[in-house]
Amino acid sequence: MTAIAVDMKQLGVAAKAASRKLAVSQTAARNSALEGIARGLEAGEAEVLAANRQDIAAARASGLDEHIIDRMVLNRERVLAMAAACREIAALPDPVREVLEQRTLPNGLELQRVRVPLGVIGVIYESRPNVTIDITALCLKSGNGVILRGGKEAFNTNAVLARIARDAAEAAGLPPDCIQFIGSTDRALVGEMLAMDRYIDLLIPRGSAELVRFVGENATMPAVTGGVGVCHTYVDAAADLDKALRVVVNAKVERPTVCNAMDTLLVHSAVAERFLPLLAHEFGVSGVEMRADSRAMAALKDVASGQRVIPARADDFGTEFLALIAAVKVVDSMDEAMEHIAEFGSGHSEAIISEDKAAAERFLAEVDAAVVFANTSTYFNDGGQFGLGAEVAISTSKLHARGPMGLREIMTYKWVVRGDGQIRK
Amino acid sequence: MTAIAVDMKQLGVAAKAASRKLAVSQTAARNSALEGIARGLEAGEAEVLAANRQDIAAARASGLDEHIIDRMVLNRERVLAMAAACREIAALPDPVREVLEQRTLPNGLELQRVRVPLGVIGVIYESRPNVTIDITALCLKSGNGVILRGGKEAFNTNAVLARIARDAAEAAGLPPDCIQFIGSTDRALVGEMLAMDRYIDLLIPRGSAELVRFVGENATMPAVTGGVGVCHTYVDAAADLDKALRVVVNAKVERPTVCNAMDTLLVHSAVAERFLPLLAHEFGVSGVEMRADSRAMAALKDVASGQRVIPARADDFGTEFLALIAAVKVVDSMDEAMEHIAEFGSGHSEAIISEDKAAAERFLAEVDAAVVFANTSTYFNDGGQFGLGAEVAISTSKLHARGPMGLREIMTYKWVVRGDGQIRK
Repeated sequence: MTAIAVDMKQLGVAAKAASRKLAVSQTAARNSALEGIARGLEAGEAEVLAANRQDIAAARASGLDEHIIDRMVLNRERVLAMAAACREIAALPDPVREVLEQRTLPNGLELQRVRVPLGVIGVIYESRPNVTIDITALCLKSGNGVILRGGKEAFNTNAVLARIARDAAEAAGLPPDCIQFIGSTDRALVGEMLAMDRYIDLLIPRGSAELVRFVGENATMPAVTGGVGVCHTYVDAAADLDKALRVVVNAKVERPTVCNAMDTLLVHSAVAERFLPLLAHEFGVSGVEMRADSRAMAALKDVASGQRVIPARADDFGTEFLALIAAVKVVDSMDEAMEHIAEFGSGHSEAIISEDKAAAERFLAEVDAAVVFANTSTYFNDGGQFGLGAEVAISTSKLHARGPMGLREIMTYKWVVRGDGQIRK
Repeated sequence: MTAIAVDMKQLGVAAKAASRKLAVSQTAARNSALEGIARGLEAGEAEVLAANRQDIAAARASGLDEHIIDRMVLNRERVLAMAAACREIAALPDPVREVLEQRTLPNGLELQRVRVPLGVIGVIYESRPNVTIDITALCLKSGNGVILRGGKEAFNTNAVLARIARDAAEAAGLPPDCIQFIGSTDRALVGEMLAMDRYIDLLIPRGSAELVRFVGENATMPAVTGGVGVCHTYVDAAADLDKALRVVVNAKVERPTVCNAMDTLLVHSAVAERFLPLLAHEFGVSGVEMRADSRAMAALKDVASGQRVIPARADDFGTEFLALIAAVKVVDSMDEAMEHIAEFGSGHSEAIISEDKAAAERFLAEVDAAVVFANTSTYFNDGGQFGLGAEVAISTSKLHARGPMGLREIMTYKWVVRGDGQIRK
């Protein structure tokens, strides 16, 4: 990579001006740009992969963790998946200028509430280059400008991807400045970006909990709060234990490194002695370590010593493990489970397993989280699964957007009032 | 008033715990509490007015501005108006647990997005005691707990009003701790309140632009941004000048001290020479001072010297006057008007007067503000006028809520997923 002096203010001004044009652009132009990105990716595959090989080689040379390098690697399949994502987003209904409500007031004023873009979205992300295309496509579709700051490891890859997107926007008659890629990896520019509340309407941090926290604390503009999921599953006294087993294993094992994976299992004391040994067996097969409170340890006393069952420390509760680890606690009532969740949960994904409909409904009503589940896996907390078409983040904020954020969650609304000389007395 | 040591943390814990019960309370209980407040106000009128007289006497003795005292004064009519507001809010449909969307996913999961309370709303307000009742009523209806911090001048009045509200909540079977009135005027408690992000989900500053700014800069929880309206009206070349005159005078004169009053008039050069002298006459009658740019001054050169027309200084543009003053500027195109609004507006209320439908529609689409108006007065930006039932604030933020904030704007949603053992692969 080369050291280029980037004038962040100029970049912000250009993005803001272009976003105003994009906000009033036609549906067809935005969809045509999305199709153009898909074609650009297909035609530019060799160039994308060459830039990616350059990034990978540099990353290996600098001794970067293979785990991170793995996220950076593109291949033909992954490039085509990005193109397919653009076409899927193009096929969604246009959310721009959607009329959310309208009525005629008694004085004849025509009142409308209309969905409109936020303006410019800033995105700070880490090693996955597909974020460049995914977020750009969502911003184009929703009429938002975007300022992209990707991880330095994937700089060359991201630069090529952003150029393909800008070219496609221009070819579709849209201002290419609505897509801004920060052409330098200088860390100081992140600080400048976080101060640009005049030009960036919403900042989305995509990556580690640390990044999300840093952005939340330092951004002058609103930022998405999310990314940290301390997720609980409560197995009730009235649970169907077969279902519970299937769901708990899915929530923990299927993809342990994501925010919607289960971290803490709460088990009612009436079923702990039957359920926990069954679970320990399944968890043993999948290599999950159980960190059990004293009552759970007692229920697991006869489990084969080969299983990974160790006593929980106090700070295991409230921890997001992002690994094949589960904290386990026995409770005497659903109230105790809900108290535990209120104290230790992060408001992300919380589940109950119970055949007692009244208990399940009480849990769903009383637990305060972005997504609450009955008899299914927290791993379903996902914009794609919910049919939102795509997802930029999962918000744990209660304001603006809660849970999976798709197209409409990166938009706002305005009130439009059409009159004929009415005045208010 | 007495100096009482207030344990803010305890107050926050109590509000949060009570708010959880309120969130799952029945519609009838919340409406009964609202009716109870109305009756409490009617029955307690003498006590309310006695406390108010005490506050007024103390305010006069301390030499407080009569303008502020005027806002503090209660009388029979104002107390009955508060009672009526409670009954109006009780009559609104219950927004709590309203299902905003629902669908069955292909795997059989039942997905719902449900409107729920935010939790606890903190309100910091100044001299008007009716805010105590208005906001408490809106919070009760929406299932939110509330922590009230009123202006010290009206402390005794607010204390009586809050007690009436708590008694009514309790009589309706709701936890009275969902209504917390800070029983001390110690200024340090405001700082403590702004740090209570664990117990307050949204902070609403009601009062001066200075208060709003202070809260925005210092609150650790989300706060409503609003209160500052630098509002423009653009009189287009194709304006009906009779309508323009009527609307501009209404927007400036009817209630100049509120945020939705017009501050800057932009006039197309094609009509400036006809329109501005007519307006100067009307503004002269109403005592409005015109601060005119050089071209507007030229158009006004023949206006009788008795009218208040003076040359504008640069900083008159972008100023919220809150008084009978209007900045006036002549522009050569709608684009120039929209550029001016983009630079100097606060995203609050912006209007165009034009019979050219295409021009009006372009203005409505392109101007980025909470409320945009064609051929009517910015003074209509109001929750009551829009039929929202009531209003806690007018937001100029683009996130969460934009424009008048009624009941649903102090609420959030949660996703509820009901399954039968489904797992995600």
